[in-house]
Amino acid sequence: MIANKGRAMWLRNCWYVIAWDHEIPAADDAHLFSRKVLGEPILVYRTASGSMTAIADKCCHRHAPLSVGRREGDNIRCGYHGLLFDPDGKCREVPGMDAPPPKACVKKYPLAVKYKWVFVWMGDPDKADETMLPDNFSCDHPDWKNIPGYLHYETPYLLIADNLLDFSHLSYVHPNTLGGSKEIALAKPIVETVDANGQRGVKVSRFIPNVPAPPFYTRFRSFDSNIDRWFVYEFLFPSTLLMHSGGRPIGDAPDDNSRAVINHSCQTLTPETETSTHYFFQQSHRAILNDDTVRHSMYNTLLEAFNEDRDMISAQYRNLSDGALEQMLPLHFDSALIRFRKMLKDAVEAEKP
Amino acid sequence: MIANKGRAMWLRNCWYVIAWDHEIPAADDAHLFSRKVLGEPILVYRTASGSMTAIADKCCHRHAPLSVGRREGDNIRCGYHGLLFDPDGKCREVPGMDAPPPKACVKKYPLAVKYKWVFVWMGDPDKADETMLPDNFSCDHPDWKNIPGYLHYETPYLLIADNLLDFSHLSYVHPNTLGGSKEIALAKPIVETVDANGQRGVKVSRFIPNVPAPPFYTRFRSFDSNIDRWFVYEFLFPSTLLMHSGGRPIGDAPDDNSRAVINHSCQTLTPETETSTHYFFQQSHRAILNDDTVRHSMYNTLLEAFNEDRDMISAQYRNLSDGALEQMLPLHFDSALIRFRKMLKDAVEAEKP
Amino acid sequence: MIANKGRAMWLRNCWYVIAWDHEIPAADDAHLFSRKVLGEPILVYRTASGSMTAIADKCCHRHAPLSVGRREGDNIRCGYHGLLFDPDGKCREVPGMDAPPPKACVKKYPLAVKYKWVFVWMGDPDKADETMLPDNFSCDHPDWKNIPGYLHYETPYLLIADNLLDFSHLSYVHPNTLGGSKEIALAKPIVETVDANGQRGVKVSRFIPNVPAPPFYTRFRSFDSNIDRWFVYEFLFPSTLLMHSGGRPIGDAPDDNSRAVINHSCQTLTPETETSTHYFFQQSHRAILNDDTVRHSMYNTLLEAFNEDRDMISAQYRNLSDGALEQMLPLHFDSALIRFRKMLKDAVEAEKP
Repeated sequence: MIANKGRAMWLRNCWYVIAWDHEIPAADDAHLFSRKVLGEPILVYRTASGSMTAIADKCCHRHAPLSVGRREGDNIRCGYHGLLFDPDGKCREVPGMDAPPPKACVKKYPLAVKYKWVFVWMGDPDKADETMLPDNFSCDHPDWKNIPGYLHYETPYLLIADNLLDFSHLSYVHPNTLGGSKEIALAKPIVETVDANGQRGVKVSRFIPNVPAPPFYTRFRSFDSNIDRWFVYEFLFPSTLLMHSGGRPIGDAPDDNSRAVINHSCQTLTPETETSTHYFFQQSHRAILNDDTVRHSMYNTLLEAFNEDRDMISAQYRNLSDGALEQMLPLHFDSALIRFRKMLKDAVEAEKP
Repeated sequence: MIANKGRAMWLRNCWYVIAWDHEIPAADDAHLFSRKVLGEPILVYRTASGSMTAIADKCCHRHAPLSVGRREGDNIRCGYHGLLFDPDGKCREVPGMDAPPPKACVKKYPLAVKYKWVFVWMGDPDKADETMLPDNFSCDHPDWKNIPGYLHYETPYLLIADNLLDFSHLSYVHPNTLGGSKEIALAKPIVETVDANGQRGVKVSRFIPNVPAPPFYTRFRSFDSNIDRWFVYEFLFPSTLLMHSGGRPIGDAPDDNSRAVINHSCQTLTPETETSTHYFFQQSHRAILNDDTVRHSMYNTLLEAFNEDRDMISAQYRNLSDGALEQMLPLHFDSALIRFRKMLKDAVEAEKP
Repeated sequence: MIANKGRAMWLRNCWYVIAWDHEIPAADDAHLFSRKVLGEPILVYRTASGSMTAIADKCCHRHAPLSVGRREGDNIRCGYHGLLFDPDGKCREVPGMDAPPPKACVKKYPLAVKYKWVFVWMGDPDKADETMLPDNFSCDHPDWKNIPGYLHYETPYLLIADNLLDFSHLSYVHPNTLGGSKEIALAKPIVETVDANGQRGVKVSRFIPNVPAPPFYTRFRSFDSNIDRWFVYEFLFPSTLLMHSGGRPIGDAPDDNSRAVINHSCQTLTPETETSTHYFFQQSHRAILNDDTVRHSMYNTLLEAFNEDRDMISAQYRNLSDGALEQMLPLHFDSALIRFRKMLKDAVEAEKP
């Protein structure tokens, strides 16, 4: 089985979310935004035209971070010896030289912005392909409401992927937030392979009939009966979850959403280092309920639940002495994560020269 | 000479103290007790019958700590995916499966409770042998009074064993607490090998005639003359000190304890990791002085002195760049510790397959 | 190119500053001074005669730090088992032994005090040669005023040496303190090799005509015109900067200092460990301005600037994943540091047996 940490498990020719778009300062803001992805420090900034650029946050001269330098128009001046870089990472000026040497440049990363997620391409730039971007539509859609979230994990990203690939934990980790009943753990999911339109990964579908509504549902409507619940999500390379979920009163037809609660969630994991991870997430509800109180209380419930996950996964990680999963005991819960890890491992292998 | 750290110096087929019995919560207490021994996290809990059990604090499924789960009667429910384990470590239930797979279990450790010390056996369970438990009688005896103590060390356990095997340090590390005079360092101890009745280690006897009484003696009685002092202890595998010590006015016969101060002390070291250690201790006085003030002030003196040791040993450890003792200069002080380390090294070697 | 960290880059047969003389307590002070140089803990103390001695802060018996022991006259008593060492590091007493074994001693380091810097010799004691001490005269000279400074770096020493060997950073790191104009970065320095009278290293001379006076000059005098500035320094093994700098109104002759500001600075780097460094420094002005307010404000400016350096170098170090400079892009700025690193590397190689 694939190990939990190490560069060995990083897929490179794919898009990773580096930030929510609101995190990147405006062009007239002196602050510079930097974040590490796959161990590489990356500076993301906006040019006067409003577009964004991503370049290595590491001067080619002596590796000082450019983010402790300053903006000069659309260019960045290194704060150590004054080299000036343009939005393509090309060095435009070396103080005291007539012209910069041809090799003076920093790496430029292909960048894409889609529905408020800012993506960088970490592999061969020539292979960057925007059709591979995930369909995170609800992050920015007039019909859907959410508050964008971010958590930092001090664990390898695959342990968090495992968690997202196995919702049976909802019954035990989140009994008072997202879960609410033991039946979720009992419901066997349908696990299918996804490999189409540039998207690869697994699809997990879980239907739980006739259970009480979870606590957070009461924010949307009250139920005087049990409900039928569903969770249908894709978990796609490198580690992005796109999920439709909801519940409707028992007895209502599967195509009758008139009394249903309907959510869409987008969550994605970006390795910061071999042992730490960026987690970007949101869970949307239909805009029909355009009430900021609900939006905030939904966000708070989600944050509470995701902190429950982080506590558990961090405790698990401290217990994993050697970072490997070899000695783990695979159970029926694990079919989706085993399939995903296998696909990922093959894809990582296939990238090797 | 044997190295200071590394699994290489852990004896496995022996009993290690994991806790004082009062540290293990009652069966109706929701809190779960977990502690690491030889790098292994171990959950110790009481069943309704009042007996204790020790199982690996690591779910066999995905290694989450069971101690962040919850009790269900005499069983433990993992808080991640709901596996249920019985007091023998056997999995009784996997949510969503008719029956747990046969391999679903966590390690059970042989456990023994003797005179308030809770022991776990870290080697081959078939070799667990209660006759090998040390005679820590004064930890729980109507004739002896003490307060149980615990300290955590951020050093390998053998450096602390060295300290306990060489009381010449009392004159220098504890002049104002346990020591009191330079003569302790000058007194040559008799060092003998112990190897009988399942106990192996060394016996160290030290008699110091005609010295002033140490400060803490005045809690028991006043002396108008110098005293004769003695320290006679066994230091037994894996690292347990059992000591008779005392002092009587000079001139009193060796079998006349009518005006003597008499103590018995039990101290034991349990490696937590290669570089950290649990230290359990108590020093008892005869119950004839059944005065809680004396009990507490004795405990405070002991704790102050043992913190002096910890400060010194921690400073020594920071100075030991490579963790080995090869370059140390053996002196006459070291005869007991050299003999003990040699015996331990041979025993560890003998365990190797 | 030479690596940034590792013992591989430590020159041993040379003098390193371990302290300012005022840091070493008086002979009647109970406090003992200890500091690490090249990873070795060293105890420096004064004897009754007023001279200083430097011995290993590590008892030969079981490696306890002697600095947690105590003085007894001119000797040091180990606080663990009472061994007594004289100022030459020879053991004079082992409690309980008639005489210490001949091998009982700790390493003695050749020590020299010159102009308030306390130096230790880290190589072969037989090669210790006081003619190799640098000429740090302004540290203690009636004509020059300063306040001695010390900073601790959590970076390898060579990254700081790089900084001191390339003053083009003044324009960018210190625009509001020591720098003041972009012309410093533009001025090409003259770099020469120094190898005479026991001193080896590089000499860097930089003349910047017709620039505004930097902010701190106004503490000495006001200028109604631009000035000509100069920086002339030697950077000598192991890592000591000795610098004459100043500025005079444009138009004044090069030998006319009647309206000039004149400074002399001594700065030196001592590796504490492979990844941390002691930095001793002072910048003096002519005593003609014997005004304590100026002395303090000059010191504060210097400290502010040197904290700017430390922030930048620490950020650079965090960015240097593998601690090597191989992938750096050498530019014209780097001629002095490349020459110095090459000389140092050759010298370190030449020391190898």
